[in-house]
Amino acid sequence: MIKHYKLGFLGFGNVGRALARLVVAKSAELRELYEIEWSITGVATRGLGWLSKPEGFQTSSLLTSSIDESSPDRSIGINEWLLAARPDVVFETTSLNHETGQPAIDYLTAVLKSGSHAVTANKGAVVFGYDDLSKLAADAGKRFFFESTVLDSAPVFSLFRETLPAVKLRAFSGVFNSTSNVIIETMEAGRSFDEGVKMAQELGITETDPAHDVDGWDATVKVCVLANVLMKIPLQPSEVRREGIRNLSTQRLQAARSEGKPYKLVARAKLAENGASLNASVRPEQLGPSDSLGNVRGTSLAAHFELDMMPGLTITSHRPGLQSTAYGLMADFINAVKG
Amino acid sequence: MIKHYKLGFLGFGNVGRALARLVVAKSAELRELYEIEWSITGVATRGLGWLSKPEGFQTSSLLTSSIDESSPDRSIGINEWLLAARPDVVFETTSLNHETGQPAIDYLTAVLKSGSHAVTANKGAVVFGYDDLSKLAADAGKRFFFESTVLDSAPVFSLFRETLPAVKLRAFSGVFNSTSNVIIETMEAGRSFDEGVKMAQELGITETDPAHDVDGWDATVKVCVLANVLMKIPLQPSEVRREGIRNLSTQRLQAARSEGKPYKLVARAKLAENGASLNASVRPEQLGPSDSLGNVRGTSLAAHFELDMMPGLTITSHRPGLQSTAYGLMADFINAVKG
Repeated sequence: MIKHYKLGFLGFGNVGRALARLVVAKSAELRELYEIEWSITGVATRGLGWLSKPEGFQTSSLLTSSIDESSPDRSIGINEWLLAARPDVVFETTSLNHETGQPAIDYLTAVLKSGSHAVTANKGAVVFGYDDLSKLAADAGKRFFFESTVLDSAPVFSLFRETLPAVKLRAFSGVFNSTSNVIIETMEAGRSFDEGVKMAQELGITETDPAHDVDGWDATVKVCVLANVLMKIPLQPSEVRREGIRNLSTQRLQAARSEGKPYKLVARAKLAENGASLNASVRPEQLGPSDSLGNVRGTSLAAHFELDMMPGLTITSHRPGLQSTAYGLMADFINAVKG
Repeated sequence: MIKHYKLGFLGFGNVGRALARLVVAKSAELRELYEIEWSITGVATRGLGWLSKPEGFQTSSLLTSSIDESSPDRSIGINEWLLAARPDVVFETTSLNHETGQPAIDYLTAVLKSGSHAVTANKGAVVFGYDDLSKLAADAGKRFFFESTVLDSAPVFSLFRETLPAVKLRAFSGVFNSTSNVIIETMEAGRSFDEGVKMAQELGITETDPAHDVDGWDATVKVCVLANVLMKIPLQPSEVRREGIRNLSTQRLQAARSEGKPYKLVARAKLAENGASLNASVRPEQLGPSDSLGNVRGTSLAAHFELDMMPGLTITSHRPGLQSTAYGLMADFINAVKG
């Protein structure tokens, strides 16, 4: 039986807009395959304020920004917005805070308390809020999903949740930060670090502050997300040995490349002997062609898992784009409401 | 609430025995995480006949073959066995028939009609029986699962079923036959084709008749399984352009390797322009280190998918063993009964 879902967007930047375009494009499949119909009843951004329209916005107006932005209503907040928009699912894509996960955690808390599913692209909210938000979701019979936080669209969390029952994860490694990869490859071609940063910015893949990428923070936060969720170990960013790519000279990168073992920014975590704590690092490493992460180039991302049930499982996402990230959020939506 | 499941084993060779050992080893996790208890109430093999024991066999007796094999009961058949053993889940691991999928299809039909979930490691049954068996399972409210047929333990079918909703698969490629890989690598090291076959046999990875591996039948059948299940296109083995590895000389393999583009037996399928048929092939191809399948070596297996929602997604299973294959069957069991 067709069910109608009201959608709320907290944040409506590139990812939020790509998601709105995607649910429009996939409308027929959502209805036919999953009996899902939808309308967008709430959109909140810094520029627009807390907008709601219980009968649903015209998605085209939202995407062309033909909505009246002249007087954003700032007198209300998240709770009033949730009461007005009454969303069944909220997509949270506000900007990332690597230190506290705020204000995303407060937003997601309010969302789950209001009885809506919460889907986020926000790594910070997962690292600093995973336990509380998961508990809230479980108590409310709702879902707190965040598939796009680590490998964009490639499934990691749903992979473990739905396809790998009763496995034990012993260690993982990954190439989680495409900006660093692109900078390294630009420098291997003889250009400077700054030209590499510029290249990554032109590709639209950097964090707002590229320092978060090149100093290893982005990869570090992703390691913590995976450790928290997949290993139930509350690893904090400060516990990860972290070394960025700033100290790699063009000469060193070129030499490594010509010996067939180019550098990548590699993230690793491994269960300690006691089985209760992790040794985790993010640092430049030389990888050969037969390494499981050895062929991850350009904007591609990959995660490698060592499991008790299989020696190694690698998931590689090749050149994900904005639509891929948006797809991760849409997949969470479908998986949240399908049961 | 703990639920007890009666398990039936159709076939009890290496894989069946590894599975029995695995459910013993994972008993505590099955109970604590999935509220699953189990007993083996039926085992059928050519040597043993159709054994059943409603109160459950001692698994250790089954594994040590201390069961009385002197007079296998051949007077009954699959239906009598199902009536006597009353399994909730049957694991079908009888030997593969590449041409017809029989007798596995008849067995699985009987299993599903009796109201049991059917889990198979048998590619032939999926290629030749997928539509009918899926329909039977749906009508009976049971599951027909076969996760271990293509990449052993690495999730492929549950990946698409559970984690990638509303995607469209446009093409896929894969390194699906580890025997061919091992033979090629043995020959790259200067040894003969026959020594390569022997090496693969010692590793325990070949089909009963290694011709099925080296002539590309195994990979071809896997292409058909993926096309049938993931693309809903009833591709038959005869429709796949198939070239095995017999014509590759040691010299040619060594030359390819030294230019950094070694040969692998690569399977490919791509949706034709009309969107309704497939161009599919299995043949030796030279792959460079940056290819998505370029670092699959030894006994490792990999599948690469091109999706409308993401440019490329690769799943690599590194050196899966017998326990990994058994895990694929156990994962199907858990996923079948969890809802």
